[in-house]
Amino acid sequence: MLVVQKFGGTSVGTLERIKATAKRVIETKQSGADVVVVVSAMSGVTNQLVEYGEHFSKEPYGPAMDMLLSSGEQVTSSLLAIALNDMGYPAVSLTGAMAGMYTDNVHTKARITHIDTTRLKRELKDGKIVVVAGFQGVTADGDITTLGRGGSDLSAVALAGALNADLCEIFTDVDGVYTTDPRIEKRAKKLEKISYEEMLELASAGAKVLQTRSVELAKKLNVKLTTRSSFNHNEGTQIVGEENMEKVLVSGIALDKNQARVTLRGVIDKPGIAAEIFNALADKNINVDMIIQNVGVDGTTNLGFTVPQNELEIAKDTMSKLSAAKNIEYDDAIVKISIIGVGMKSHSGVACTAFDTLAREGINIQMISTSEIKLSVVVDQKYAELAVRVLHDAYELDK
Amino acid sequence: MLVVQKFGGTSVGTLERIKATAKRVIETKQSGADVVVVVSAMSGVTNQLVEYGEHFSKEPYGPAMDMLLSSGEQVTSSLLAIALNDMGYPAVSLTGAMAGMYTDNVHTKARITHIDTTRLKRELKDGKIVVVAGFQGVTADGDITTLGRGGSDLSAVALAGALNADLCEIFTDVDGVYTTDPRIEKRAKKLEKISYEEMLELASAGAKVLQTRSVELAKKLNVKLTTRSSFNHNEGTQIVGEENMEKVLVSGIALDKNQARVTLRGVIDKPGIAAEIFNALADKNINVDMIIQNVGVDGTTNLGFTVPQNELEIAKDTMSKLSAAKNIEYDDAIVKISIIGVGMKSHSGVACTAFDTLAREGINIQMISTSEIKLSVVVDQKYAELAVRVLHDAYELDK
Repeated sequence: MLVVQKFGGTSVGTLERIKATAKRVIETKQSGADVVVVVSAMSGVTNQLVEYGEHFSKEPYGPAMDMLLSSGEQVTSSLLAIALNDMGYPAVSLTGAMAGMYTDNVHTKARITHIDTTRLKRELKDGKIVVVAGFQGVTADGDITTLGRGGSDLSAVALAGALNADLCEIFTDVDGVYTTDPRIEKRAKKLEKISYEEMLELASAGAKVLQTRSVELAKKLNVKLTTRSSFNHNEGTQIVGEENMEKVLVSGIALDKNQARVTLRGVIDKPGIAAEIFNALADKNINVDMIIQNVGVDGTTNLGFTVPQNELEIAKDTMSKLSAAKNIEYDDAIVKISIIGVGMKSHSGVACTAFDTLAREGINIQMISTSEIKLSVVVDQKYAELAVRVLHDAYELDK
Repeated sequence: MLVVQKFGGTSVGTLERIKATAKRVIETKQSGADVVVVVSAMSGVTNQLVEYGEHFSKEPYGPAMDMLLSSGEQVTSSLLAIALNDMGYPAVSLTGAMAGMYTDNVHTKARITHIDTTRLKRELKDGKIVVVAGFQGVTADGDITTLGRGGSDLSAVALAGALNADLCEIFTDVDGVYTTDPRIEKRAKKLEKISYEEMLELASAGAKVLQTRSVELAKKLNVKLTTRSSFNHNEGTQIVGEENMEKVLVSGIALDKNQARVTLRGVIDKPGIAAEIFNALADKNINVDMIIQNVGVDGTTNLGFTVPQNELEIAKDTMSKLSAAKNIEYDDAIVKISIIGVGMKSHSGVACTAFDTLAREGINIQMISTSEIKLSVVVDQKYAELAVRVLHDAYELDK
């Protein structure tokens, strides 16, 4: 039995929390399992280091930035190993490089190329608890890299895959994945299971439980993933293959408040216009989300899309330079609500329920987009919480 | 022309100081020299990390402690490289491991075994400023090590030796080596030159300008060493071979307040007693300094020695368990004053001047010890500053 346990920033946020984490790891070890632990930086540390780096440069030199940022996880992994050893459990702390976590050389957002597990396996064979600094890797040339925000989840899943671990547990400060945000709907229920696909849609729809790339990788490597709290012993939520899911229609409802709507009216309806607009936005690294275009009338059409609210100003600036975009409306008083469920694949009527429910409350739907297992709508932000609650009720997610 | 420049904790103590250090490095680069920079952790950081580690364990696990401590220098070297790149000077930051700084595996006080200069030379050839995290190295197995307190000086000297640098400059917050502590004697003069041997005696006598091991290594590798301030452009002090020294009698006077005296009266004068005592103290890692034993009378003798004041309690505890040590006096109200100069080798009378001078002021000498180029005396601590000043005057060090 081999378990990979990943502890996020709040789980190692203070010296006391690190000690609690050590105890948690020891419980698992005592159950007879081999344990590989992956840790994030203490909460706040990465932001602090980014600030330091940006004090000197708007675009800090990547390789140096990676060496800087990687120090945060290096500190927590060392401290956890010190605590474990002191409690009588031999443990070794490894940087990404020492753990054989090889990446390409795209600094500050590197991708894992392969993991050389020689050292990891040797330490495990020696009975040691192996503590790995998350979020970081090393190039073939020996340069330190980092994997981008939330990269420690990715480190954990990749290690679990490479070591063929029986389980990968992601510890955070919430109990698992909920049917919706419990701060909005008190009757929100923790899901026992959710499919990789639903989890991916939830994550991209604004629920911040697991980093998207790590879920994708878990699916690809078939890693048994669980997310749970390090602050209690409640069972968490298992992320499993669709084949292991009971048939549920809708698993959860996600609310994304960080969206703004852009509408172009009277766009000339000829090939290449949309390409011009979205290429210009992509050049500025703006993440365009929902895109809606209707069949045109009189040779013109309306084009709508959403962008993250904090990228709206850059989007405005970009759009103002385009000849195709003249009559433009911006609206940042909107939210995106997404209904997610593998059941949608085989059941019709899911969308109707949503439309009926919102209409009954007098909530106007401004945009709609759908994927195989997700329905997203844009509504006025003043209805955000109400819409989430009535939809949660309509799909009986509290049952 | 290749220069190694080392900047200590206060020289990189704030983001502003790091920027000032970047400018200083660029000045050297602009003069046409290749530059390798070695940096310490920001002042206070190493102590903070030690505290963190000791929060979990009285004796923190060495390899994890080294991984923890090394993060401090990793941060400053990254930040300096970011600053240099932003100012238009291509720079690369390297950890000890990346810089090829190989050590043995005695964690927290490793010794450098060799330096693989391949990477360093490649980066220099590419015209880059190379910023190396000081104080750290790597074992043949890839584990991070640290070199002990003041280890960044050692990193700098070792790199200068391995790269055959033309000069190794150690930047601190003082202008160089003084004839004595200017806070005690205002007329203290900065020395233009001092020999390695004198520097070694000064360092071991309590003057904290350069780490002892780094001076030893500089002497061994024949590294041209200078210590100067990063806060101004004053010329510093060169540390040179004796052959390059003009004939001076006395170079400086050092005061060491961190000493305590231990006196054993009536020790049975037979072989093995001293060995028993000093082995017991060595087992506890207590640094015994001056040892004085007189010819015995009536089969017994008096034995005196000094230990660091902060190790006195452990020393007392250790002594109390020894059968040979019965009648013991402890005195921590003493100081050690050392007179240092290569001229002592060939000139007699240096000691007489000291004894006469102190006697004239009514200062009683409690212990005396001598080496080839050093004369140390122990006196009551109330006379510390007075003794330094009258000796400074007697040897005309202000001239």
